Amino acid sequence: MRVLILGGDGYLGWPTAMHFAARGHEVTVIDNYLRRTIALETDSEPLYRTPTLQERAEIFAAVSNHKVRVVIGDCCDYDTLRGLVRDTQPEVVVHYAEQPSAPYSMRDYGSARLTLDNNLKATFNLAWAVIEEAPQAHIIKLGTMGEYGTPKIDIEEGWIEIDHKGRKDTFLFPRQAGSLYHTTKVLDTDLLWFYVRTFGIQVTDLMQGPVYGLRTPESELDDRLLPNFHYDDIFGTVVNRFLAQAVAGIPLTVYGKGGQTRGYLNLLDTLQCVELAAANPPGTGQLRILNQFTETFSVNALAEKVINVGRHMGLNVEVQALDNPRKEAEEHYYNPTHSGLLELGLQPNYLTDAVMEDLLKTVMCYKDAIAPRKVLPRVRWKQ
Amino acid sequence: MRVLILGGDGYLGWPTAMHFAARGHEVTVIDNYLRRTIALETDSEPLYRTPTLQERAEIFAAVSNHKVRVVIGDCCDYDTLRGLVRDTQPEVVVHYAEQPSAPYSMRDYGSARLTLDNNLKATFNLAWAVIEEAPQAHIIKLGTMGEYGTPKIDIEEGWIEIDHKGRKDTFLFPRQAGSLYHTTKVLDTDLLWFYVRTFGIQVTDLMQGPVYGLRTPESELDDRLLPNFHYDDIFGTVVNRFLAQAVAGIPLTVYGKGGQTRGYLNLLDTLQCVELAAANPPGTGQLRILNQFTETFSVNALAEKVINVGRHMGLNVEVQALDNPRKEAEEHYYNPTHSGLLELGLQPNYLTDAVMEDLLKTVMCYKDAIAPRKVLPRVRWKQ
Repeated sequence: MRVLILGGDGYLGWPTAMHFAARGHEVTVIDNYLRRTIALETDSEPLYRTPTLQERAEIFAAVSNHKVRVVIGDCCDYDTLRGLVRDTQPEVVVHYAEQPSAPYSMRDYGSARLTLDNNLKATFNLAWAVIEEAPQAHIIKLGTMGEYGTPKIDIEEGWIEIDHKGRKDTFLFPRQAGSLYHTTKVLDTDLLWFYVRTFGIQVTDLMQGPVYGLRTPESELDDRLLPNFHYDDIFGTVVNRFLAQAVAGIPLTVYGKGGQTRGYLNLLDTLQCVELAAANPPGTGQLRILNQFTETFSVNALAEKVINVGRHMGLNVEVQALDNPRKEAEEHYYNPTHSGLLELGLQPNYLTDAVMEDLLKTVMCYKDAIAPRKVLPRVRWKQ
Repeated sequence: MRVLILGGDGYLGWPTAMHFAARGHEVTVIDNYLRRTIALETDSEPLYRTPTLQERAEIFAAVSNHKVRVVIGDCCDYDTLRGLVRDTQPEVVVHYAEQPSAPYSMRDYGSARLTLDNNLKATFNLAWAVIEEAPQAHIIKLGTMGEYGTPKIDIEEGWIEIDHKGRKDTFLFPRQAGSLYHTTKVLDTDLLWFYVRTFGIQVTDLMQGPVYGLRTPESELDDRLLPNFHYDDIFGTVVNRFLAQAVAGIPLTVYGKGGQTRGYLNLLDTLQCVELAAANPPGTGQLRILNQFTETFSVNALAEKVINVGRHMGLNVEVQALDNPRKEAEEHYYNPTHSGLLELGLQPNYLTDAVMEDLLKTVMCYKDAIAPRKVLPRVRWKQ
């Protein structure tokens, strides 16, 4: 398959590129290093430096004999993206090219505007590039479970049939996100759904939960092929923050009551899911939505896991409750469906004690690089 | 009241400005003449030329002794809009500053991109300008009934309670629009709802149907104060197109089966609705949504009205069915609620034969200016 990956430098983008290339697909990645730039500007550099995309591609080719073609460019520039789609004629486009930080999107006008502009333009340009240059291409868009928020009813996979005053119709499941970043993904969905039903393009929207993990079969070939690891308050997930805090002997910072429950998954499962989606396209004129996570747990339950495994390993792990910098429900109902990807063949990797231990060991290799100033919340939702 | 009107040069913006000024309010309007520019570029000039905003304000001051302050500027430029909100400290901001043409938004990549950029940025900037400079201000946003599309269930006023698997929650009523323009208004709603619940601003979203009419008490003072009248395929509504066709002796162009049903209202009622919304703010942290129309009818029923009144006046009125350039249901269920504005005190003006006759007479004054080339559809939804 010819696979084009937008945002190929990211935590998911680079492992996805290697994963498809290692399976014999023809892979092109594009990235403008937006995340690296923002990380530098906001003192949120990752735990270890990752090589440039060209360097990574060179290292990967040397150890695996598989090629990843690299383009440094901005998907918000239509000529760039349209030209790339025309030249590569992708069968699958995996779209990760979004500013992915919720706190960054809530920092101030400028960061909010950048998030809105970048995410909407990249998505809009992709829809148009596919319509104009490769109308059969299957767009695999990374959405987020955060688009749904935490409603009081069960979360279905993307759609819901509403029975109202004796009549029925099917609609997108209501979305109500907790940050501007997550809201831009809601807008992305609205936009893609419009172009799917009007121009007949085909899209899979993967509503993903927070991802953890570093090792993949390809990154095992050379440590320089590891994806980036952000533990800061801007780009770091709660899992990564807790891992870094446990290793550095800083208390785990639980925001508010800690009952915030989300669906999580291992990086290995993201790769499986994207591959399964690519191998099973929905068909033209279809917007298929799949909820992409393997298990749900609360922040408190996650802290417990880190404490149990960390202490067993001799780490000094404590918990510190912080005023919640976000505006979110801290105790809530949460029952999202996630059967679609299992039906396609997903074999879940759960966050077992062994996996947690391996994650902690990996982070321990870089213990001296952990900067405590980066882990406390620097952005509040409401000033 | 201090009232700031964004898009004050438009078909609704200018009459709204005069309406509030005539009632003693302190009115400022801003406009960047985007509609005039697009009309010029697309050969869609209105039936008669309207003076510039400064000229209109001067004429209105001379005949009424009421003042409208005019600013020519772009709401997509944050410094401009923020400065204006800071300086005027509005109690009410009426937001009409959007590219309002569905066909224009479906013309090509460039026009779609302009529509997305303009509409989202103006709305986003307004939310931020209010948050940063006038957090108590009441934003009255013109939405459109077109955001809902034509679902198979009754359309409620903005919100719906969903009873699902034995649990309940209330959500925005599902939106599924028929053009990119209408989709940008869906995105506007998503954005404003996010900032309402996160920063506690107060917003009324008026989900308006197509508006017809020209005369208001203020425009009666001087013909040069009439709002613009577009009968072209880009900016003209189906009502205006039929009026121009009836007067020019061109068959009324019905798209497809003509069963497309929408909620319509008189310009006088738009003015009432906006005034009622302004006089009854929803309160901070509230997004109030009101469906703004007074009666529903199909395109075929509208054509019948024009034929009956037009023939009675001696006009030669015929109908011509055209292949539908749009992608829309041509026969569908349509039962939208619209009680909120009636409860606030709206006194509807219906499209009676007398009103239709008056509209036809007004257009007859400009009969010679009608250009038949402008009325046939020049944009198809799918090439």
